[in-house]
Amino acid sequence: MEFTRGNGMGNTSLHWRYAVKQFDATRKIPADDWNDIEESLVLTPSSFGLQPWKFIVVTSPDIKEQLQGASWNQTQPRDCSHMIAFAALKQVTEEYVDSFLQSVCDGRGVSMDTLAMYRQILLGFLKNQEGKHFEWATNQVYIALGQVMAVAASMRIDACPMEGIVRSEYDRILGLDGSQYGTVVGCALGYRHTDDKYALAKKVRFSRQHVIEYRE
Amino acid sequence: MEFTRGNGMGNTSLHWRYAVKQFDATRKIPADDWNDIEESLVLTPSSFGLQPWKFIVVTSPDIKEQLQGASWNQTQPRDCSHMIAFAALKQVTEEYVDSFLQSVCDGRGVSMDTLAMYRQILLGFLKNQEGKHFEWATNQVYIALGQVMAVAASMRIDACPMEGIVRSEYDRILGLDGSQYGTVVGCALGYRHTDDKYALAKKVRFSRQHVIEYRE
Repeated sequence: MEFTRGNGMGNTSLHWRYAVKQFDATRKIPADDWNDIEESLVLTPSSFGLQPWKFIVVTSPDIKEQLQGASWNQTQPRDCSHMIAFAALKQVTEEYVDSFLQSVCDGRGVSMDTLAMYRQILLGFLKNQEGKHFEWATNQVYIALGQVMAVAASMRIDACPMEGIVRSEYDRILGLDGSQYGTVVGCALGYRHTDDKYALAKKVRFSRQHVIEYRE
Repeated sequence: MEFTRGNGMGNTSLHWRYAVKQFDATRKIPADDWNDIEESLVLTPSSFGLQPWKFIVVTSPDIKEQLQGASWNQTQPRDCSHMIAFAALKQVTEEYVDSFLQSVCDGRGVSMDTLAMYRQILLGFLKNQEGKHFEWATNQVYIALGQVMAVAASMRIDACPMEGIVRSEYDRILGLDGSQYGTVVGCALGYRHTDDKYALAKKVRFSRQHVIEYRE
């Protein structure tokens, strides 16, 4: 499974991408492409490998329109092909850690005993982060956001990262209220509308000299 | 500028990558590859385009060794080719916003007047986020971390994201104390050592059914 469509990953992709303002609502991401996007989400690296997230994929026209209303009426959730709500785990419980370690045992064919020390390290870390689990999990979610935007661009799939959303409204609409997860950020994926003038705007970044410092 | 080395971006890259435990200290990333990595950092998307970050690239053997000491003695900062410390802006001031808007004016050849409304939106957002600027900037930094790991993997450059660092020690060693930026996370880049047994460990992830939910 490699992305032979497009030009492959890299800076050409990163120059090509921009935060789409207007999606072409008639164009849908083909199933095989979407399959690759989902796999890249699953493969996202996270601290300790704990994957403290849920990715809610919204394609229902009705729910996408509700999400528009929960996004200051920005049209991307409604007009994109697939809208992802990135949700972070609110509290990393001992039970969660054990379910994670069980997945390691299952995946690698080792016994839980061999992970006893790792378990202690994890629980020590989490105790030390008490009260900040959601913030920590949110950081991990942003790794997923960064990766999926890069992967999508390499496939010439457009995206718009969306922080301008009402998280509590997203939680309500998506049925996350009362769950262990809370929405932190969104990402609309699909194809830019030919009328979207932002596609032509020159990309603006601080210079390399401004953002990179060296200790040589 | 496209990455024709490696297989291009995509899931093959994401399966190939892992969090390197032991780098080959004798191997250095070639200058042209590093140039591409730096450009990808510069191109990282951020909320409102504000780019609230500094990327400190460390190649000095002495400083890399100090960073090892500030990383619970993990060897990656010392043995990697290039160590990046990702620093986030502590406070997004009006002055900062204006320097950003000036870069937009310069880049797009428009006058500051045309951005007056955007300026008000930005300042309103930042006022609303008062006391949480560093947390918000940290989220943006994690987008950069996610993107650079994906880009590096597509170039078959190895990486190890490092949250297990003492941020205050990094700030002291890197001379960030008293600056507007604070270290939030590290990433060691280079090449895996042939002895690194973690390269052979089966990648463990929750199943797609576990982490993805649908609203269709």
